[in-house]
Amino acid sequence: MKSDDFEAWIALEQRSVERALETWVPTDAPAGLGEAMRYGVLDGGKRLRPLLVLAASEAVHGNAEAALRAAVAVELIHAYSLIHDDMPCMDNDVLRRGKPTVHVRYGQAQAMLAGDAMQALAFDVLTPDGDAVPPALQARLCGLLARSAGHAGMAGGQAIDLASIGVALDEASLRDMHRRKTGALLQASVLMGAACGATSAQARKALSDYGAAIGLAFQVVDDILDVTQASETLGKTAGKDEHHNKPTYVSLMGLEAARQHALELRDQAHAALAASGLSSAARLALLADKVVERDS
Amino acid sequence: MKSDDFEAWIALEQRSVERALETWVPTDAPAGLGEAMRYGVLDGGKRLRPLLVLAASEAVHGNAEAALRAAVAVELIHAYSLIHDDMPCMDNDVLRRGKPTVHVRYGQAQAMLAGDAMQALAFDVLTPDGDAVPPALQARLCGLLARSAGHAGMAGGQAIDLASIGVALDEASLRDMHRRKTGALLQASVLMGAACGATSAQARKALSDYGAAIGLAFQVVDDILDVTQASETLGKTAGKDEHHNKPTYVSLMGLEAARQHALELRDQAHAALAASGLSSAARLALLADKVVERDS
Repeated sequence: MKSDDFEAWIALEQRSVERALETWVPTDAPAGLGEAMRYGVLDGGKRLRPLLVLAASEAVHGNAEAALRAAVAVELIHAYSLIHDDMPCMDNDVLRRGKPTVHVRYGQAQAMLAGDAMQALAFDVLTPDGDAVPPALQARLCGLLARSAGHAGMAGGQAIDLASIGVALDEASLRDMHRRKTGALLQASVLMGAACGATSAQARKALSDYGAAIGLAFQVVDDILDVTQASETLGKTAGKDEHHNKPTYVSLMGLEAARQHALELRDQAHAALAASGLSSAARLALLADKVVERDS
Repeated sequence: MKSDDFEAWIALEQRSVERALETWVPTDAPAGLGEAMRYGVLDGGKRLRPLLVLAASEAVHGNAEAALRAAVAVELIHAYSLIHDDMPCMDNDVLRRGKPTVHVRYGQAQAMLAGDAMQALAFDVLTPDGDAVPPALQARLCGLLARSAGHAGMAGGQAIDLASIGVALDEASLRDMHRRKTGALLQASVLMGAACGATSAQARKALSDYGAAIGLAFQVVDDILDVTQASETLGKTAGKDEHHNKPTYVSLMGLEAARQHALELRDQAHAALAASGLSSAARLALLADKVVERDS
């Protein structure tokens, strides 16, 4: 696949996810709640998780309506986690995607409620009436999303993160934290996309390995960018890991070794796709490159 | 049905819900998260929502495993909402079910995460592997729960509540707020229980009406108890509506008219059950009485 085609595909799918979010995130929720929800999720981000869902679904010739709903649902979970993570009792951050964070704009109470409502909305979007998404697939998608967002996944990783400030973690502990905090939802994005079609056990295992590798690669690169990029490029506060005395791959391994590790994880992701037996996984391979080569 | 039998049934089902929560709310979630989750939901409350699920399921001869999971899921959503609602940026309450609130005990960040993880766990519990709960029923239960917890239901009602402090609401606006804030999840409890079995359209409509009536009755009685009972009886801070200058049924209608209104809503609930065509709705009728006659 040519790189131009891939960029065009990304732009196309980003627009389709944006349109779906525009439709499904309510304009009419009461007392400003809808406005805070929309502020927290529209017009922002690279939509990496939705792209993973859509590319994985494409690789297994999945149900397109289900895949779009899954893409929106993972993005809602991701966006809610950022809103809560930015709050004063957590990271106390004021800048996100180049804009004031939700609690700065709408107050802490509304920010907490907006996040809570977005988590519920994710499961709402996954369970439409009618038969466009078979009920068994709806249930499967809800289960994958719930388990990746909850105590064994994202929320658990955030709890470890909270407890780890100023604590010396070894690489295994750091890996465990990130596998949960960011890795679980990235991997779930791949698995949810794969669930939208028929897959062999071999392909499912391979896609799960792919998801695990890029989930970790994403965090390693995040740690690298936190020390190498300015806040303007990132659209969020740079250097905050060091400022908060948080352990990172860079503080643990050094910058060059962290860069090398990211490349190894990309290679693992490619190897998993090669072992999947899937003939249309080219976009997943390019997404792995993008995760590692991004500069923001 | 004799009142003794009903109380024995309540005690039996409360124990079964407690055992299920003990099993499904994790002991091993990382970094203290599981402990905060368990503190927030175990050993507490009357379990009214689970009892409504179980009684409604019984009325339609529903799938018992599904009903127990639905009962636990609604209680998890209820408990998470209390944890978030008690936080300093919301009601800033320090006492709940006679114990320090979760953020007082574990800090605000852990309390927010515990609530977030409990919402995810609710959908996790509803989507078990295996065939004990048919996937189509899993999807239906997830959808009902998501819509009652989200912007159109509980979270939306809380946003109205936030915005209404010190504002003169008329009865219609107050009713709309409560229909969402507490009514939606109480009604969903009934509908989720009913979804566990086969029902006629007539029965579904009647159970929906029953759920709406007791949902509102619950709130009217809550407002009455807030002014008539001491904190020790309630296990939470009494008189806080007046203190926060929040509109209530009592401030709007006066105490006697509010009591009368609660009795009317109970009668509406009974009438709905009579119109349902269901032969085994006796426990739902007694639960309506209990909602109105409770003293805490």
